Amino acid sequence: MTTPDQTAPAPTAPAASPTTPVHPSMEALGRRLGQVSDLRAAASLLSWEQETFMPEEAAPVRGQQLATLAGLSHELFTAPETGGLLAQAQPQTPTEEAVVCVARRDHAKATRLPTAFVEEQTRAQNEAHHAWIDARRHSDFGAFAPHLERMMDLARRQADLMGFDEHPYDALIDDYEPGMRASQVQAVFADLRDRTLPLLDRIRAAGDAADYGVLTRPFPAQAQKDFAWRVAGEAFGLQGSFARQDESAHPFQSNFSRSDIRITTRVEPYWPACLFGTWHETGHAMYERGVHERWARTPVSAGASLGVHESQSRMFENLLARSLPFWERYFPQLQEVAPAVTEGLDAGALYRAVNRVNPSLIRVEADEVTYNFHVMLRFELELALLEGTLAVRDLPDAWNAKMQAYLGLTPPDDARGVLQDIHWSAGLIGYFPTYTLGNLLSVQLLEAAQRDPAVAQGVASAEYGPLREWLVEHVHQHGRSLTPAELTVQATGQPLGADPYVAYLHRKYGGIYRLD
Amino acid sequence: MTTPDQTAPAPTAPAASPTTPVHPSMEALGRRLGQVSDLRAAASLLSWEQETFMPEEAAPVRGQQLATLAGLSHELFTAPETGGLLAQAQPQTPTEEAVVCVARRDHAKATRLPTAFVEEQTRAQNEAHHAWIDARRHSDFGAFAPHLERMMDLARRQADLMGFDEHPYDALIDDYEPGMRASQVQAVFADLRDRTLPLLDRIRAAGDAADYGVLTRPFPAQAQKDFAWRVAGEAFGLQGSFARQDESAHPFQSNFSRSDIRITTRVEPYWPACLFGTWHETGHAMYERGVHERWARTPVSAGASLGVHESQSRMFENLLARSLPFWERYFPQLQEVAPAVTEGLDAGALYRAVNRVNPSLIRVEADEVTYNFHVMLRFELELALLEGTLAVRDLPDAWNAKMQAYLGLTPPDDARGVLQDIHWSAGLIGYFPTYTLGNLLSVQLLEAAQRDPAVAQGVASAEYGPLREWLVEHVHQHGRSLTPAELTVQATGQPLGADPYVAYLHRKYGGIYRLD
Repeated sequence: MTTPDQTAPAPTAPAASPTTPVHPSMEALGRRLGQVSDLRAAASLLSWEQETFMPEEAAPVRGQQLATLAGLSHELFTAPETGGLLAQAQPQTPTEEAVVCVARRDHAKATRLPTAFVEEQTRAQNEAHHAWIDARRHSDFGAFAPHLERMMDLARRQADLMGFDEHPYDALIDDYEPGMRASQVQAVFADLRDRTLPLLDRIRAAGDAADYGVLTRPFPAQAQKDFAWRVAGEAFGLQGSFARQDESAHPFQSNFSRSDIRITTRVEPYWPACLFGTWHETGHAMYERGVHERWARTPVSAGASLGVHESQSRMFENLLARSLPFWERYFPQLQEVAPAVTEGLDAGALYRAVNRVNPSLIRVEADEVTYNFHVMLRFELELALLEGTLAVRDLPDAWNAKMQAYLGLTPPDDARGVLQDIHWSAGLIGYFPTYTLGNLLSVQLLEAAQRDPAVAQGVASAEYGPLREWLVEHVHQHGRSLTPAELTVQATGQPLGADPYVAYLHRKYGGIYRLD
Repeated sequence: MTTPDQTAPAPTAPAASPTTPVHPSMEALGRRLGQVSDLRAAASLLSWEQETFMPEEAAPVRGQQLATLAGLSHELFTAPETGGLLAQAQPQTPTEEAVVCVARRDHAKATRLPTAFVEEQTRAQNEAHHAWIDARRHSDFGAFAPHLERMMDLARRQADLMGFDEHPYDALIDDYEPGMRASQVQAVFADLRDRTLPLLDRIRAAGDAADYGVLTRPFPAQAQKDFAWRVAGEAFGLQGSFARQDESAHPFQSNFSRSDIRITTRVEPYWPACLFGTWHETGHAMYERGVHERWARTPVSAGASLGVHESQSRMFENLLARSLPFWERYFPQLQEVAPAVTEGLDAGALYRAVNRVNPSLIRVEADEVTYNFHVMLRFELELALLEGTLAVRDLPDAWNAKMQAYLGLTPPDDARGVLQDIHWSAGLIGYFPTYTLGNLLSVQLLEAAQRDPAVAQGVASAEYGPLREWLVEHVHQHGRSLTPAELTVQATGQPLGADPYVAYLHRKYGGIYRLD
């Protein structure tokens, strides 16, 4: 019950103001795509609110409401009427052509899986997810194994239904990284592995490069959040007029339009989690902010892929916020808000501390050097599971062996090993590689951007305005109108490779750990 | 972009677990009504969020998203398929019978207005709303007059399309107070007016009953909100497990299920605004909380009418929170959190201060004695406008004359007179009476409840548990399955009348102002 005393009516939506008259076939299609987009935005808002403010008792009902919104938007998008509108669409401009192209691709994919299969998959994922929560809690891989077998079986069937040229994995990774193939991932990962392992050995031999105790010095919660948010605005352009920061158990970015962006953070005694987590989500946020308004309320209005998205979050979090110029600029502000943290330090010492390389069991806590090994391990294992060359029952041993080979560690239990990630329980096979693809792309993009002297000069003095302009022009504005491969070549002049990232690691950590 | 590292999947909705097998006709209908209900809940959440947290730039897009959700839920509910499901429904239980009955009534009403008419009305309301904002800002009734004429014309046409027996006004008030008629409102209002005006004269003659300066003594913002929220929980049962309090420009209550209730408040130097505003919204909230789970995701799951809703908010705000036993109980807590407010006061002095009777120009600031005159004035005027016995151009004079007659005041300008309310600009003709109907019902219900000695004893000591149980049983749980008239007779033993309210005013204010 909301009474008119209490709330103002919703403001009127601005009328569409096309510069040229819209073709009738495009007008009907635009209306339909707009409805689907609005339903998905509403669902995103309900999900965001579930993680931030929702009272606990509301969880089951919220789940039902989200299921209804997802069902209705899927129904609307896959309806024969939508198929007809797409078939008859006569795009008149390059913008309209891109919208129709992306929408047709999405529609073809969305209609390729029979409803019965999707329902079976949803049920199985739900059961697997709950089984995983229990299994992880009790570190009992055996309880999760049958569910993982079923997930893999469903993944194989999904790949067959979707179709593929080379490898069934290609049909799966396409959901996250359109056009990517397992063979390409294998090639680039092998290169990266062979050239990073020796570096990691040398770093481990070098010993500590800083006093890492500063990373848990007292930093009041509100001051952490305020500082992270202020710098997200000052350095990276995230503003309260179109964005908010709130707290949630796991940090994430979500947006309901390019004018309505949310990031969340969490506060821990290990204060870099809040700061760098915020700037990571800021990278995601500024990507969505930069998508051009011309794609609003169409399926083009989103990041090109998970990998490209991750390239932006990682760029802000690691390449910029974990750089020496960044801390030379923001160290005085940190001193003001957290004197207990900075006592006896200078910018250089802080820079070395927040770039600690420390092989660990947990992927989400990993540093720039070791992170990709966590990803490679998972990619290799899920590929073998999908192919059937690795049995699910042998997975924990295989996991532990690879962990030993890559990072020299053995998990004390499966909770801190094979059961640590949510992805497989949610049926997300083919997702992991995008994390490392994003890391690689982040450096490749930043180097391309710095060919522009204004960008390079800005980055060297932690003035990121010119870089942000470059990113909007070469990455953000295109939304999904370019595939990740098209975008990479167009923006950097070459396909995605490991070279820039490997050179970056050697340069940066060679300096920090004095490896010359 | 939300990645699985970042958010847990939505929890599964609990499977429906009917005690008896559901008839196929009811199952399909239930699914459809559930979808409509979920869409409306999502829209409510988007509206709530718009008033609380939304970044300012997002307003136009949010408006579009809300329009899409409203359009889709209307489309789904009025679709011929829904009509077919309703026609063929074979309810097997009293619960199902009530659902089908209410849904058929809503469906008949929703399909009676042609789409072209609704679109014309929406456009006109939108224009009128913007014209009203400007007109109020410049206190320029002339600029709003043509829009009000159009609103009245549309209201007359709407009444004709909806149909009525006695008076076109009946077709309009039915949207807010189902089954109510203008003639009934006139009768009860006349009675109320004749018996309250002499009381008001005596109060005005009596002079001040307390030091009203205490109402603006310093009370820190956070302490106001915390105290209001804590007492809402302790006295009235509103709990964080199913509800939240946030801030907004205008306080309101909203809910997305009975497990997901939101109230908002605002903080002002006049601190009773925050406290009593919170407890007002708490009354609305506890009504929605008390609606029985059996009506979940059906159109029965809401308050019976705006009047019945207001009876609950007014009961909590005025009959309980502005009572002497309430302050005898909570004064010590207030002393703790706001010593500057309570200095030199006791519970009785505070009780008299917060019950100041003070004729004023603005309805939303009015006290228990004068509030209803504001409502009567509006009702009389909108009835005359609808009938055509009053011309729009003569409205300001008519307004000011009635204001003088009822409250002895003349507005210095139309902004503080005829232009003060949003309702007419939003096409809400027939809405105002529900405020006073709610006031009357609040006392009639409380007196009926206190025939139970446990309730009476509880109210006398500000222990509201027994009263809340009585309200759940006799009012809340029924949702919309009873009409307001049915509910009133069933709960109080007689139809709605002015007697209890008039007696209450004489008793309470006779004491405060020592009128004996």
